[in-house]
Amino acid sequence: MAVLDVTQLQTIMTEAFPGADVPRVAEVDGDTVTVIYAVDERHGRPGGTVSGPVMMMLADTAAWMAILAQIGPVVLAVTTSLHIDFLRKPALRDLVAKATPLKLGRTLAVVDVAIFSLGHTNMVAKAQVTYAIPTANDESTPQ
Amino acid sequence: MAVLDVTQLQTIMTEAFPGADVPRVAEVDGDTVTVIYAVDERHGRPGGTVSGPVMMMLADTAAWMAILAQIGPVVLAVTTSLHIDFLRKPALRDLVAKATPLKLGRTLAVVDVAIFSLGHTNMVAKAQVTYAIPTANDESTPQ
Amino acid sequence: MAVLDVTQLQTIMTEAFPGADVPRVAEVDGDTVTVIYAVDERHGRPGGTVSGPVMMMLADTAAWMAILAQIGPVVLAVTTSLHIDFLRKPALRDLVAKATPLKLGRTLAVVDVAIFSLGHTNMVAKAQVTYAIPTANDESTPQ
Amino acid sequence: MAVLDVTQLQTIMTEAFPGADVPRVAEVDGDTVTVIYAVDERHGRPGGTVSGPVMMMLADTAAWMAILAQIGPVVLAVTTSLHIDFLRKPALRDLVAKATPLKLGRTLAVVDVAIFSLGHTNMVAKAQVTYAIPTANDESTPQ
Repeated sequence: MAVLDVTQLQTIMTEAFPGADVPRVAEVDGDTVTVIYAVDERHGRPGGTVSGPVMMMLADTAAWMAILAQIGPVVLAVTTSLHIDFLRKPALRDLVAKATPLKLGRTLAVVDVAIFSLGHTNMVAKAQVTYAIPTANDESTPQ
Repeated sequence: MAVLDVTQLQTIMTEAFPGADVPRVAEVDGDTVTVIYAVDERHGRPGGTVSGPVMMMLADTAAWMAILAQIGPVVLAVTTSLHIDFLRKPALRDLVAKATPLKLGRTLAVVDVAIFSLGHTNMVAKAQVTYAIPTANDESTPQ
Repeated sequence: MAVLDVTQLQTIMTEAFPGADVPRVAEVDGDTVTVIYAVDERHGRPGGTVSGPVMMMLADTAAWMAILAQIGPVVLAVTTSLHIDFLRKPALRDLVAKATPLKLGRTLAVVDVAIFSLGHTNMVAKAQVTYAIPTANDESTPQ
Repeated sequence: MAVLDVTQLQTIMTEAFPGADVPRVAEVDGDTVTVIYAVDERHGRPGGTVSGPVMMMLADTAAWMAILAQIGPVVLAVTTSLHIDFLRKPALRDLVAKATPLKLGRTLAVVDVAIFSLGHTNMVAKAQVTYAIPTANDESTPQ
């Protein structure tokens, strides 16, 4: 059902953030895309955990990948809202995000994202992310 | 009503993220704290706008500052949830976040955060952020 | 700036929910619409407070009124997402919701809603509500 | 793993809302509780669909049941936040909610809730709901 594979998704992400430390697209399984982010000391917070913004970036990116996997390389899809619950403090290790579309509409897509510490089964954060899919005569321009 | 001033808040933030590019605490006015983030090309996205994760980081940080301004230097307060609506694509310029606590409870604080482009009055994003305030025998330890 | 007044908004709401106990549109002031809901024992919860679903219904309805006040009688606008933080337990008395649009786009509107107990200044709940504005060839049909 | 069964949960819900039209607890399977709500014309909206507030009430109630199933009859647990995405307009028929705890902490519980039309597999709404679990010396009193 996916129209893009791991390599194609990785290329889109790497080209969208040139020079940045982007997550790695690890798997496309049905409509779920798994993305892994390499965590190091720069992402740490007091108490040896990972900062919230790192998890939000990962949720946002994983949702984008899950949408593109289904609808193709719509690079200009933009996040319209993100809700995240932080469930447990993750240790300072790599994070895994599993993103699954709940709705792929003509103008809106909603994606469920679960985040784990690599190698652990307890979920550390859970997000619902909405993207707007641009149309031909789109309103979304910088102010 | 604030128990910490701009300088004290800035010191806490800078020490919490050593070596990082932290936002600047610009003003404490009543219970509202204003924080400014210097945006450059690294924070850009296709179309000349600022990435969503930068705005989420700023919302999270501004909320933390607004709580500490009222309750003092509780460095280990942690975000438990964040909801953000992206309203307009900001141009690639500095961002201003205004954070105001809606509730400061014994264990939970909820903060309203409005984000603008510096020098513009149209809001570009709006967030509601919840922090847990640690107590003496707190459960929140890394998994 | 509003294109509908209190009486017109009330008529739309009353006709949309025939026979129901709808909120009262109390004021249109600039772009903020104030709506009041008459609370009685049926809306109570153990401890003498108002149930959460009553506040969610009120947030949703107030947001709808605030959008229609600006764009006219688009009865088929539908809620696409709602986020609400419950801040304090309200006593079992009438509730007041103040709804202000944050964005009125071509296809999406986002509204900020603050809820109070009538006659009190402490906010009891705060919501951000998103509506989809139907277009000519809209996808939104029952499944 | 559940400490309460379908009958015990139903009794708690029915007693908490005397005289009201409460949902039916249909199943406790592992940590997931399934709740069904009988929809009729009173819950309708123009276009033959179910109103958003009905789905929010159902998400809130199902989350409460899923928490009590695990921790026992803590009637005074209160919702602190609810986020819901409306995915598809449901037809005017009974709704099914499946609620699964993501976190059961000492003071906070977070529950994932998926809502379907009875007999259909397309999800119509998805929520993340947070409850505060009262402690001995709890702050939560009406204002």
